[in-house]
Amino acid sequence: MASIFFTDCSTSNTARLIHSGHRHSPVSLRRFVDPLHMGLSYSPVSLRCFAVHSPTTVSSSPVAPIASMATDASAKVIDGKAVAKQIREEISAEVSRMKETIGVTPGLAVILVGDRKDSATYVRNKKKACDNSGINSLEVNLPEDSTEQEVLNFISGFNNDPSVHGILVQLPLPSHMNEQNVLNAISIEKDVDGFHPLNIGRLAMSGREPLFVPCTPKGCIELLHRYDIPIKGKRAVVIGRSNIVGMPAALLLQREDATVSIVHSRTKNPEEITRQADIIISAVGKPNMVRESWIKPGAVIIDVGINPVDDPNSPRGYKLVGDVYYEEACKVASAITPVPGGVGPMTIAMLLQNTLISAKRIHNFQ
Amino acid sequence: MASIFFTDCSTSNTARLIHSGHRHSPVSLRRFVDPLHMGLSYSPVSLRCFAVHSPTTVSSSPVAPIASMATDASAKVIDGKAVAKQIREEISAEVSRMKETIGVTPGLAVILVGDRKDSATYVRNKKKACDNSGINSLEVNLPEDSTEQEVLNFISGFNNDPSVHGILVQLPLPSHMNEQNVLNAISIEKDVDGFHPLNIGRLAMSGREPLFVPCTPKGCIELLHRYDIPIKGKRAVVIGRSNIVGMPAALLLQREDATVSIVHSRTKNPEEITRQADIIISAVGKPNMVRESWIKPGAVIIDVGINPVDDPNSPRGYKLVGDVYYEEACKVASAITPVPGGVGPMTIAMLLQNTLISAKRIHNFQ
Repeated sequence: MASIFFTDCSTSNTARLIHSGHRHSPVSLRRFVDPLHMGLSYSPVSLRCFAVHSPTTVSSSPVAPIASMATDASAKVIDGKAVAKQIREEISAEVSRMKETIGVTPGLAVILVGDRKDSATYVRNKKKACDNSGINSLEVNLPEDSTEQEVLNFISGFNNDPSVHGILVQLPLPSHMNEQNVLNAISIEKDVDGFHPLNIGRLAMSGREPLFVPCTPKGCIELLHRYDIPIKGKRAVVIGRSNIVGMPAALLLQREDATVSIVHSRTKNPEEITRQADIIISAVGKPNMVRESWIKPGAVIIDVGINPVDDPNSPRGYKLVGDVYYEEACKVASAITPVPGGVGPMTIAMLLQNTLISAKRIHNFQ
Repeated sequence: MASIFFTDCSTSNTARLIHSGHRHSPVSLRRFVDPLHMGLSYSPVSLRCFAVHSPTTVSSSPVAPIASMATDASAKVIDGKAVAKQIREEISAEVSRMKETIGVTPGLAVILVGDRKDSATYVRNKKKACDNSGINSLEVNLPEDSTEQEVLNFISGFNNDPSVHGILVQLPLPSHMNEQNVLNAISIEKDVDGFHPLNIGRLAMSGREPLFVPCTPKGCIELLHRYDIPIKGKRAVVIGRSNIVGMPAALLLQREDATVSIVHSRTKNPEEITRQADIIISAVGKPNMVRESWIKPGAVIIDVGINPVDDPNSPRGYKLVGDVYYEEACKVASAITPVPGGVGPMTIAMLLQNTLISAKRIHNFQ
């Protein structure tokens, strides 16, 4: 039996992004949990990095220009949690204005199939983000043995529901379903994930505009913007080429006139190439892979990876680390996102933003 | 008055590709003429390069493996004219088999607006390529002062015409028309140029397949394949990021597991980056821009540029050169495409191939 009820609305995107290629493996799923979805508290960044943590210092105008070269051997921390908080406040204000002006509340529909605990956790943790922003969230919970057609029927219903402006299907789907069929059924006007090939094509083409930019790469670029880090003319290396993070991140960087190289599993000399980058975006899911020797002094690092590693000192038995060896990177980078507290919170903020953008576009609200 | 008549079917793609950003300038149009469209004869390559010209040496199986390092300081010539001839013979055989088996002849429709002499030349030169391959070509010639709606009406007619399997709109269009609107009207099933954003999106995404690959970048990769030049794991640099060549060429290289960097007008150190490449694809439209110092010894060079430069010794007063300084490149590269006779002929062959692919798909013919 399907149940429909209101819930919170943090996104499954981070889970999705890191699960590329591992979507049906409980083991790999666990390896890449999004700390926000797990309800973990935010950890202060390493003392070896100079922290720029106060949300009061973060605004949509330049807040903390990053020097082109690190001179103090201690990178500035790009505080995704603080930026995301501010963006969610901005979204909240816009949602209120929309309600007051035209009486419309943005709505996000999430379809969850099966009873995976991690997926259920993601769904439970959505409520707060949506509540805080004033966005309605609607959830369908279907049993594991549902048919693909049942999922498609719900998508069709949401496509035609004027109170729904964004639709998310929680991945992974049960193995008897064709993920591509299901995702393709989402109306491009409500594809707040931005994964539709038409959106990706528009993202790739100069002179074209996508309806939605995928949430995680959008969050990466937004962090660079909010910290006034120049992109134009810079060498950028994206590590990982997933459909969900690496590839669209590279396209976004190129749209902003960076010179982009994509490093992936078949790259023979990833260290050498990465060391040329002014901006590194890593989204590969390998703990501490990027070492000090990979990083040009003064580079800016956006670390999308969220990887659990054993930690006997933790009550959970593990801690979360990024793709980048944080303590080493702090010595040479000019700025870096921590894990957790970097890109993760931005993904959720961007999903809310995409839902707001969709509602404004559908209702022609400026 | 519109006239509809049969004509030849060589493509306007090369013209399009190089005209990006200059589509309405007669001057720039002249600068980037496709030699095939101009009816120029094929010129033997420089004697400084070791020629591999005989079509008999070109087959779909590896024909001329390129050494990873040049040892004789004289690059092998990648003979696009010979490869294209062979591909057109293969297409011709398939077209015949299709006609004999199911009674269907592939058809390509070309819409030409206005009386530009260069465009008319491109159209006139189409006949031979289509005739040789047995593909029907249908042309609509509309006057300069036609409305956009008139063009859209013809596109709509071809979209619904079962004898038409591919549709091309000759660019540039008159300035009072919106090129994007016109191109978007072409059914994606008949978009043999492969420029629809949905096609580009599928090209960018792993696990997705485009209906059509854009002709010129497809021709570049086909040359690498036919000469058995490995792509997987190689460093590739694409110079130029146009929607029509550079960007899709980069996506294609990445699909084949190259490590790709895109160099463009905002790149600060194009020489340094290009010098790292095992494979260079240049599609920027600047005569002789890539010098010896840009090229790693042993690199393979695919030169898409076709640029006229003054030549008092020529009866035409000019000669055509590529983006790459050919004589210098021959000293260090292991293989290189000549200009003319490299990528140009491949573009037309790929257009014919896309039209055949379309007809086979529409009629479910294996």
